Amino acid sequence: NFSSDLRKVTLIPGDGIGPEISAAVQKIFSAANVPIEWEVVDVTPVRGPDGKFGIPQGAIDSVNKNKIGLKGPLMTPIGKGHRSLNLALRKEFNLYANVRPCRSLEGYKTLYDNVDVVTIRENTEGEYSGIEHEIVDGVVQSIKLITEDASRRVADFAFKFAKEQGRKKVTAVHKANIMRMSDGLFLRCCRDAAKNFPEVKFEEKYLDTVCLSMVQDPNKFDVLVMPNLYGDILSDMCAGLVGGLGLTPSGNIGISGALFESVHGTAPDIAGKDLANPTALLLSAVMMLRHMELNTHADKIEKACLEVIKEGTYRTGDLGGNAKCSEFTDAICQKL
Amino acid sequence: NFSSDLRKVTLIPGDGIGPEISAAVQKIFSAANVPIEWEVVDVTPVRGPDGKFGIPQGAIDSVNKNKIGLKGPLMTPIGKGHRSLNLALRKEFNLYANVRPCRSLEGYKTLYDNVDVVTIRENTEGEYSGIEHEIVDGVVQSIKLITEDASRRVADFAFKFAKEQGRKKVTAVHKANIMRMSDGLFLRCCRDAAKNFPEVKFEEKYLDTVCLSMVQDPNKFDVLVMPNLYGDILSDMCAGLVGGLGLTPSGNIGISGALFESVHGTAPDIAGKDLANPTALLLSAVMMLRHMELNTHADKIEKACLEVIKEGTYRTGDLGGNAKCSEFTDAICQKL
Ligand SMILES: CC(C)[C@H](C(=O)O)[C@@H](O)C(=O)O
Ligand SMILES: CC(C)[C@H](C(=O)O)[C@@H](O)C(=O)O
Repeated sequence: NFSSDLRKVTLIPGDGIGPEISAAVQKIFSAANVPIEWEVVDVTPVRGPDGKFGIPQGAIDSVNKNKIGLKGPLMTPIGKGHRSLNLALRKEFNLYANVRPCRSLEGYKTLYDNVDVVTIRENTEGEYSGIEHEIVDGVVQSIKLITEDASRRVADFAFKFAKEQGRKKVTAVHKANIMRMSDGLFLRCCRDAAKNFPEVKFEEKYLDTVCLSMVQDPNKFDVLVMPNLYGDILSDMCAGLVGGLGLTPSGNIGISGALFESVHGTAPDIAGKDLANPTALLLSAVMMLRHMELNTHADKIEKACLEVIKEGTYRTGDLGGNAKCSEFTDAICQKL
Repeated sequence: NFSSDLRKVTLIPGDGIGPEISAAVQKIFSAANVPIEWEVVDVTPVRGPDGKFGIPQGAIDSVNKNKIGLKGPLMTPIGKGHRSLNLALRKEFNLYANVRPCRSLEGYKTLYDNVDVVTIRENTEGEYSGIEHEIVDGVVQSIKLITEDASRRVADFAFKFAKEQGRKKVTAVHKANIMRMSDGLFLRCCRDAAKNFPEVKFEEKYLDTVCLSMVQDPNKFDVLVMPNLYGDILSDMCAGLVGGLGLTPSGNIGISGALFESVHGTAPDIAGKDLANPTALLLSAVMMLRHMELNTHADKIEKACLEVIKEGTYRTGDLGGNAKCSEFTDAICQKL
């Protein structure tokens, strides 16, 4: 039975433009004969026996079994008590490292033409702990939680990643001049990790300084590792340098699973109109293939995608063109 | 007695290049006949009766009496127990709003040529509360403290500022999707303040979205108001867009006093060599003059400074020229 050789991958198409860009990725993967089988699941929150909304068990089981998934954009339900589903997934599967490469796309001009950085964001704690109190009326505290375990884990990951990808430098981004204990602990873990990777250069920089330097000269940076919120900010800023979230991939890596996702919104205004740009999700899927050590397929698909963008004949509206999502997708399939 | 008409201003020359750029400002102010008298004080921390280091009483008294000061860069003593002197001053005088305008300088080219934004940063609490604990070994929490009083105060300030300066829009920058209670409170205070200023447009944006949009198109923004750390980051990023901290002024506004400062470092490598660029401190002094309602003097000095930079004959090393600090200063005096 040939199909038993195929590795299963969980696919969460998501909301808004999610289904159409997911279909685009599936079509391209078929054209490239990628040896995987998609297991499509829905993550629309369901009410559990305790009355609370949560991720449906079927989706959880699928990711736990396959240990790998691809995810389109998800809407966050509005109203009290609903937390972001994106965050719930990161927590559920303990996806501790969020990896976001930002590279200038040849042929797609922005103010910057030589960006090539990767932000690695601690993905489970920090400012995202969710622990908040109103002490007295009008006095609120939010807790930033930094643990040695999570800090070591992501610091080690960053250096391993840098080494494996042949990168030269890791920058630890922090405000240990202000948050001396929490960012201080994070920084110490980065210093310790650095000692085990003498082939990778290590530097420490204040977050504000990095923001300033990044917009002046992104070439100063290579791989950057940092606490949760700083990663949220820096990864978006870097995406901005190369053309926005429609073009940049992302991967959430855990100990026993990994989830790759486009981090742009659901774009309800153009949903269902065959106008969306599937690039971020496709490049996330390419990251996923590398994670699965299907490098040849990854390289082939990435090359085809970048070539179509470079040639410029088929570009979606967000890139200033007027190609439909399906035309862009077909152009990539053609190359394969 | 003529000199009794002169308003006294506390001058804290600071460390490293501080004294030479302060001297430059003093020279330019003399050339412009600004009706103020400088009271120069030293803020090198002294050991108090309790054995702890603190700001010398003389400096505190001077600012409390004059209610207005100008400050060069300060070194932060290295070693445990020393907190940033810059922060100590902001706390001591309850300087609750940190105002940093960033404008493209005509004739000084960066990637961006039309930046004109002002970040207004809550300056007394938030992530800078200084409250941290190690709960158990390897588990640290830092507390972000948001109060209604401080949030209202800075939100009101931002709208008043926008109105007075003829600005069109205030953007509240937040992560209330994550820190629902703390940033949520801050945001509510901004919404409330907005109601009292119908002539100023109000919008709310996530910090990550602002970072992304800002590097793509700074024209989307005007005045931005936000909690402490976000302001630290965004103000540096915006400074990066127009040429760095050597060019951007800053003011710390309190209820009973205000302190204007350049926020670049002490640049020990070039200190005492007549190579420093006094622009950031001079433009901070110009902001100070406006705060004192000495607008004619402010306009005249600002114009002279910007013209010298625009002409390009006398530019310091940081701007790619080879003029000495004193030559640049004299060129400005010449214009006056
Ligand atoms: C959607 C939102 C909760 C999320 C975050 O803040 O992490 C997003 O900005 C991201 O970067 O993935
Ligand atoms: C020197 C440092 C403590 C300070 C800060 O973090 O606020 C600086 O970056 C600033 O922006 O004034």
